[in-house]
Amino acid sequence: MTSDCSPRYLASDNTSGICPEALDYLIRANASDDLAYGNDAWTHRAADRFRELFDYDCDVFFVFNGTAANSLSLAALGQSYHSVICHELAHIETDECGGPEFFSNGSKLLTSPGENGKLTPEGIERLVVKRNDIHYPKPRVVSITQATEVGTVYSREELLAIRTVADKYDLRVHMDGARFANACSALDASPAELTWQAGVDVLCFSGTKNGLPMGEAILFFNKELAEDFAYRCKQAGQLASKMRFIAAPWLGLLESGAWRRNADHANAMARYLADGLASLPGASLMFPTQANSVFVSLPEPVISQLRAQGWTFYTFIGAGGARFVCSWNTTSELLDQLLADARAAFDAP
Amino acid sequence: MTSDCSPRYLASDNTSGICPEALDYLIRANASDDLAYGNDAWTHRAADRFRELFDYDCDVFFVFNGTAANSLSLAALGQSYHSVICHELAHIETDECGGPEFFSNGSKLLTSPGENGKLTPEGIERLVVKRNDIHYPKPRVVSITQATEVGTVYSREELLAIRTVADKYDLRVHMDGARFANACSALDASPAELTWQAGVDVLCFSGTKNGLPMGEAILFFNKELAEDFAYRCKQAGQLASKMRFIAAPWLGLLESGAWRRNADHANAMARYLADGLASLPGASLMFPTQANSVFVSLPEPVISQLRAQGWTFYTFIGAGGARFVCSWNTTSELLDQLLADARAAFDAP
Amino acid sequence: MTSDCSPRYLASDNTSGICPEALDYLIRANASDDLAYGNDAWTHRAADRFRELFDYDCDVFFVFNGTAANSLSLAALGQSYHSVICHELAHIETDECGGPEFFSNGSKLLTSPGENGKLTPEGIERLVVKRNDIHYPKPRVVSITQATEVGTVYSREELLAIRTVADKYDLRVHMDGARFANACSALDASPAELTWQAGVDVLCFSGTKNGLPMGEAILFFNKELAEDFAYRCKQAGQLASKMRFIAAPWLGLLESGAWRRNADHANAMARYLADGLASLPGASLMFPTQANSVFVSLPEPVISQLRAQGWTFYTFIGAGGARFVCSWNTTSELLDQLLADARAAFDAP
Amino acid sequence: MTSDCSPRYLASDNTSGICPEALDYLIRANASDDLAYGNDAWTHRAADRFRELFDYDCDVFFVFNGTAANSLSLAALGQSYHSVICHELAHIETDECGGPEFFSNGSKLLTSPGENGKLTPEGIERLVVKRNDIHYPKPRVVSITQATEVGTVYSREELLAIRTVADKYDLRVHMDGARFANACSALDASPAELTWQAGVDVLCFSGTKNGLPMGEAILFFNKELAEDFAYRCKQAGQLASKMRFIAAPWLGLLESGAWRRNADHANAMARYLADGLASLPGASLMFPTQANSVFVSLPEPVISQLRAQGWTFYTFIGAGGARFVCSWNTTSELLDQLLADARAAFDAP
Repeated sequence: MTSDCSPRYLASDNTSGICPEALDYLIRANASDDLAYGNDAWTHRAADRFRELFDYDCDVFFVFNGTAANSLSLAALGQSYHSVICHELAHIETDECGGPEFFSNGSKLLTSPGENGKLTPEGIERLVVKRNDIHYPKPRVVSITQATEVGTVYSREELLAIRTVADKYDLRVHMDGARFANACSALDASPAELTWQAGVDVLCFSGTKNGLPMGEAILFFNKELAEDFAYRCKQAGQLASKMRFIAAPWLGLLESGAWRRNADHANAMARYLADGLASLPGASLMFPTQANSVFVSLPEPVISQLRAQGWTFYTFIGAGGARFVCSWNTTSELLDQLLADARAAFDAP
Repeated sequence: MTSDCSPRYLASDNTSGICPEALDYLIRANASDDLAYGNDAWTHRAADRFRELFDYDCDVFFVFNGTAANSLSLAALGQSYHSVICHELAHIETDECGGPEFFSNGSKLLTSPGENGKLTPEGIERLVVKRNDIHYPKPRVVSITQATEVGTVYSREELLAIRTVADKYDLRVHMDGARFANACSALDASPAELTWQAGVDVLCFSGTKNGLPMGEAILFFNKELAEDFAYRCKQAGQLASKMRFIAAPWLGLLESGAWRRNADHANAMARYLADGLASLPGASLMFPTQANSVFVSLPEPVISQLRAQGWTFYTFIGAGGARFVCSWNTTSELLDQLLADARAAFDAP
Repeated sequence: MTSDCSPRYLASDNTSGICPEALDYLIRANASDDLAYGNDAWTHRAADRFRELFDYDCDVFFVFNGTAANSLSLAALGQSYHSVICHELAHIETDECGGPEFFSNGSKLLTSPGENGKLTPEGIERLVVKRNDIHYPKPRVVSITQATEVGTVYSREELLAIRTVADKYDLRVHMDGARFANACSALDASPAELTWQAGVDVLCFSGTKNGLPMGEAILFFNKELAEDFAYRCKQAGQLASKMRFIAAPWLGLLESGAWRRNADHANAMARYLADGLASLPGASLMFPTQANSVFVSLPEPVISQLRAQGWTFYTFIGAGGARFVCSWNTTSELLDQLLADARAAFDAP
Repeated sequence: MTSDCSPRYLASDNTSGICPEALDYLIRANASDDLAYGNDAWTHRAADRFRELFDYDCDVFFVFNGTAANSLSLAALGQSYHSVICHELAHIETDECGGPEFFSNGSKLLTSPGENGKLTPEGIERLVVKRNDIHYPKPRVVSITQATEVGTVYSREELLAIRTVADKYDLRVHMDGARFANACSALDASPAELTWQAGVDVLCFSGTKNGLPMGEAILFFNKELAEDFAYRCKQAGQLASKMRFIAAPWLGLLESGAWRRNADHANAMARYLADGLASLPGASLMFPTQANSVFVSLPEPVISQLRAQGWTFYTFIGAGGARFVCSWNTTSELLDQLLADARAAFDAP
């Protein structure tokens, strides 16, 4: 039985563990002692590999988690009296417990609605022109989540349109790349195409959701904004003393190509699940399944029945909405089991 | 040749890698998926094991590194307009790039001198009674480093004397346990004896310097001070999504007894090195070697010669002072090599 | 001509100057030197007078302005990872440039809609129960504006109902009393009835809008929350060295009864203006005129015409909405002139 | 009897009240309503007058007090992970309750000793070169107090020498001008000579100690550093709604020349007192009396006796050290009385 040996976790891609390529490098990095605080060879190699992958001489920093990556980079893009424009469903608004406000010492997030979890140039402009007095924090940053919180992606055209409005109002562009690899896969785009070529100033590239035990990379394409950023990380408790244990697993992802393979797999599993769920009479997809998350509307009894059978997933997205997230190690067997259980729940009298 | 396969790193205990017991548990924790954000079984088990080890029902939190552990716990012990009393050589004063000030939103550190890197009740009292007006931040916390930055330890009696003065002035007691295991080993004391039995309110217990890839434990013996502390960690970017990869290696240290064995070994190596260095004519120990660091005064040409041979160590501690730190994996062969090189340098014309 | 000697300012009650009673006391406080930092006799007398007026042994602090009063007291009621529930039109949300977030080091404001600018128990409860995970800041404070931003007031019953829901969820109650005097006047209620008797923990009582040159009083009825608050004020740049020049004018307001007379007058003028505007065909009041502000919907040409004639007022409240604010020195002659100009603008072809 | 009608306050220049010129303008500014938040005519005129007085097109901001002026301008000159170099006796270090750390979100102050309360180029350089690793906050600002905390002044040559070392290490220069007028008087120098001509980037010019009820001016000569500074003031609770009541009194000081006359008088009184005290056998001046403070070493019985007679003064400056501060309204009669009392105390058996 699948359910005996494999937990029925589809709540998030962070229930998965370390992918083989990352673990392999972690163990190799442990073969001998090395310098601390990022002065080791692994960290330098990993940073260089990012520059190759993005085809750009960017500044690369490693931090422990996504809250820190997003909050520290946003803090570097503005001052406490500036504001950050983001989608109303953005993780920095809904799930960081005030992290961006804490690290920036008070920057306000201004939220905009937008179809499929995406900011629009019009939505951004509306927030910028709404006020221009000193009683309201001055917009300075646009934060885009790629892929979005609802499993969709911004096309290159959409990104460029946002850059245009950002230029018009002198805004910096931050990309929350918690699922950046999944976006590259979804759009079959190179990392360069979705970042600096689209006018992104800084990218937070998540390794944790992509197969690492922990660790995120922050890439500044606008290098002026990275001035003294290493000090910022240190002060904020984000400088790992044994940094090679973040950098080496990252290198494993990059050198092996696993960063993209893992995303390809997760996205494929999500599409597989989405197709299966969509075929159930009474279930309907809530958003296009473009990356590795599936949002589906299910009757309450079906949700309860699945929960009772041990399936973990979130239902925070409105009445009847369930979110299933696939990862680098999600199997079609697990998804088949879920679909079977869901079908049975629908058929229950 | 030892020097061929083993780097000549004695600058810090964080150049060492992951000890076998920790790595074993990390790999075991990777065997299957698990819940995120500390809701996994490993994290619960590790927290319970800490409570057993300390023989106390304390609140346990895991964060990524020492800057965060110290800064967050200090922030929980006071407000921005309070001050923290620490030794003038304390790591929180000299090496955190303003981390405590950042996390607390402005708490000032008041520093005191003190022999062998140790605060004294008199030194603490002097800082408390110096001012009592609102133009100076009100002392609220005493921070003790155990073992100290200069490789010495506070005895139980010294700790109790500090608790007495802390009680007199309503101060909370924070212990920076970056090398807490080494202190337990040095004093052959139980964790309980050096913490809550000595009036410590909160301990930051370092795993990184004890054999982990990264990860520190914060133990609140004064549980009132831990109210909502999980929120504080989350907001400040210190909640690991895959927390089991911090907790499981910790569990490896605790269940195997490696936490203490590693410290015993490191301390023994430091004594071995100290004895060897002390026997060199012209070298003199600067502080008693009680834990895993050796501070020795060397002539400048000897320092230069060792550096030229690839030995890494710090010399930030005043004219001629060199610091060598031993770790869980420091070998006597490496130390013999260092001693031989030092002897040769002394003998050089 | 009125318009020659009197500016056509109806944009805010802070365009008015210092009322005679306040100026008289300011000048008297200047008759001789006095101790600094609130150790003078005027400050002590003013604090005592507040305790008499509120019939409560509260802790009283003086700060420079309303941003500081609200932000500092909110910071005293929660920690950075807590959140503050307020109305979506609350000044702390819309017009403090992120001040509350800055002083609290990151507390998030959670906003609720509500008729006539007022929070409801249901709206508060909805925000509290919406989330209970550590990824979202924990609600700890309810902030009420009395009188509200749209010129309405909370009745005693409404305040008590809010206190009930606050008790249910262990929330502290903060009152932004930017126009507290106007609320007392509107409800013909004593200061005690609208504060501690209704469960308010802390009140920010504005003097500036009531006839002072500057200066606000913060009254803690829950004195535990005021622990070390003087240090907080000092650190945050809100301790006046010559504090008597804030305290004495306050004393002038309190001892002469001007605090209430000024509010009575302003409210009466607002009602006068509201009646006049309501009688214009094509104009309609947007909110009940309970305090000293009048919100009226006017056709765009009328607004433009009034602006062209030099009238200052805000129109930030939605299409066609204009806000006129009356003050301690607003004259019926000025309002007659406005009404005449408005009537003429309506009649224009 | 002098002592009957005039308090024996010599503890600080902030025990004095409002000088006639400032009060006159304050009353004039109250003659009619005016726009809020600095959009009034008084504020514009005062800013222009500063630009004339300094012969420089600087950016001018008004805030409530000195803590805020210094802390906000320092925050504008660096980031949280930067450090500020100041003298160990600087007010920002000793008497702001952590204000600079609070407003900057954690900047550390690095202190240097220095004769007569003055920083030296060598002392600054020593702090800059001491560390250059990311574990220590990067020096970014030098803060000079003019006149110093011990009543001395930096000569133009000394200021230029500090600018030279600041340029060498890319440091910004901040001047705490709590007694800037007294320094101009002491050196018979123009404001320009002591600020932008000497390489000062920003000056905090105190009005409170110079005869205002409250209010300080911040002048940015390096205008790039003032970008969005108005937002910073607003967010930090330092934007006065009725700003004309700060600006108009400032204008009174500037237009009447009282800013300099007040300083001339205070300095002259200090010299008079210093001469008198120096002539007492057993008393000795501790620092040159260059501005408006006198530091004198007195036997403990003399100090006690003066205190018993109602004289207020500080003795925080080491064994036997007493500080007397003269102000715009200090009279020679009061000083004669003090000298007589001191002489009598010395003569007491």
